[in-house]
Amino acid sequence: MSDRGGVSVATVKYYLREGLLPPGTPVTARQSEYGEEHLRRLRLVRALITVGGMTIQQARDVLAVADDPAFGRHERVGIAQYMLGPQISPPDATDPERALWDEVFAEMRGLLSEMGWRVNEEAPALAALTRAVVTLRSLGYRGSVEHIRRYAEVMHPIAAEEHTVMDEHPVLEEAIEAAVAYTMLYEPILLALRRLAHEDVSAHRYGIPPPHPPLSSS
Amino acid sequence: MSDRGGVSVATVKYYLREGLLPPGTPVTARQSEYGEEHLRRLRLVRALITVGGMTIQQARDVLAVADDPAFGRHERVGIAQYMLGPQISPPDATDPERALWDEVFAEMRGLLSEMGWRVNEEAPALAALTRAVVTLRSLGYRGSVEHIRRYAEVMHPIAAEEHTVMDEHPVLEEAIEAAVAYTMLYEPILLALRRLAHEDVSAHRYGIPPPHPPLSSS
Repeated sequence: MSDRGGVSVATVKYYLREGLLPPGTPVTARQSEYGEEHLRRLRLVRALITVGGMTIQQARDVLAVADDPAFGRHERVGIAQYMLGPQISPPDATDPERALWDEVFAEMRGLLSEMGWRVNEEAPALAALTRAVVTLRSLGYRGSVEHIRRYAEVMHPIAAEEHTVMDEHPVLEEAIEAAVAYTMLYEPILLALRRLAHEDVSAHRYGIPPPHPPLSSS
Repeated sequence: MSDRGGVSVATVKYYLREGLLPPGTPVTARQSEYGEEHLRRLRLVRALITVGGMTIQQARDVLAVADDPAFGRHERVGIAQYMLGPQISPPDATDPERALWDEVFAEMRGLLSEMGWRVNEEAPALAALTRAVVTLRSLGYRGSVEHIRRYAEVMHPIAAEEHTVMDEHPVLEEAIEAAVAYTMLYEPILLALRRLAHEDVSAHRYGIPPPHPPLSSS
């Protein structure tokens, strides 16, 4: 199981001890059998902890909701995204930054509502968005709502395509694993491509020739 | 100057000592006068260090290129982006991951070349992109070139728009400040909007009603 799940035997034992993996079927006193379901769960736990950076307790919380048929698919998959960092709290009520936070939070909420996005007020990403815009403004940059709207309009179609790929897994555990893996692992890809695109735009604008030797032939 | 530059007096003194700010014109034995140019430089240094997370030495390197008319605008502004983290090196030649790295690096280079992007092979963002795709693949996810291309096509127009905004500053120092501030401060905004868009897509797909109370009226 360790081989096929891509983690060490010690890690599998640790997950078993922490109750993140159900015990296998005992074959001898020292060996147990693990089936496909165990492997799927192992891959999911690895994604939550190694890729998602969750604590054991957060992973346990995700699995509890994922295993609870009282929740719908939206929550059973979405809980994993909510546990991914960064977890950002509003400043204390006495913090001088609090007034700006409240103002920006209301603006961002209003923007999402105007665009018809169905997003929970408690969404960690809404707090993360608010924090980023507060930082922008407190450094004296504009960060206008219209500007944020433009980014939202660009990100929505790509998120919809991603969601289709994540969601094509009929097994819930695989869909959760895909949601965590996609969310986390494509973030640095998006950011790196944005910087490379900046470089390209600048090179074209200032008439810089293609790099030598050409990228394609070296 | 401290007031208008948004940093403490101690920080201004520190930047002066480190040679990141030129000395002002002495008025009395204990006071100097600082003009608009000083303020612009102070704002730039603050952006490099506070927003860009650069070390003093990296900031010095950026300023040296920015102040050197032997370089064109592409390099004088672009050097700042190159100094922003993360700085990623390829694995050692003896590292078992090296073969995968080389393969992915060649694929990414080929993709950029096919798309006609003029990007330096030494671009830190190309190493960051390679690292992210290596991680994806070594965890057993596909990360196909076609998939990366789709993200590149989405990011390019938004990067072009951003570049226009950054570049509207006729004073070089302001353009560099804008490049650093834009690059860094919009990264968490992009990522938060992507996660919020995922939530919205899932809510619509699984028929979750708008949050109650409605975002717009609370």
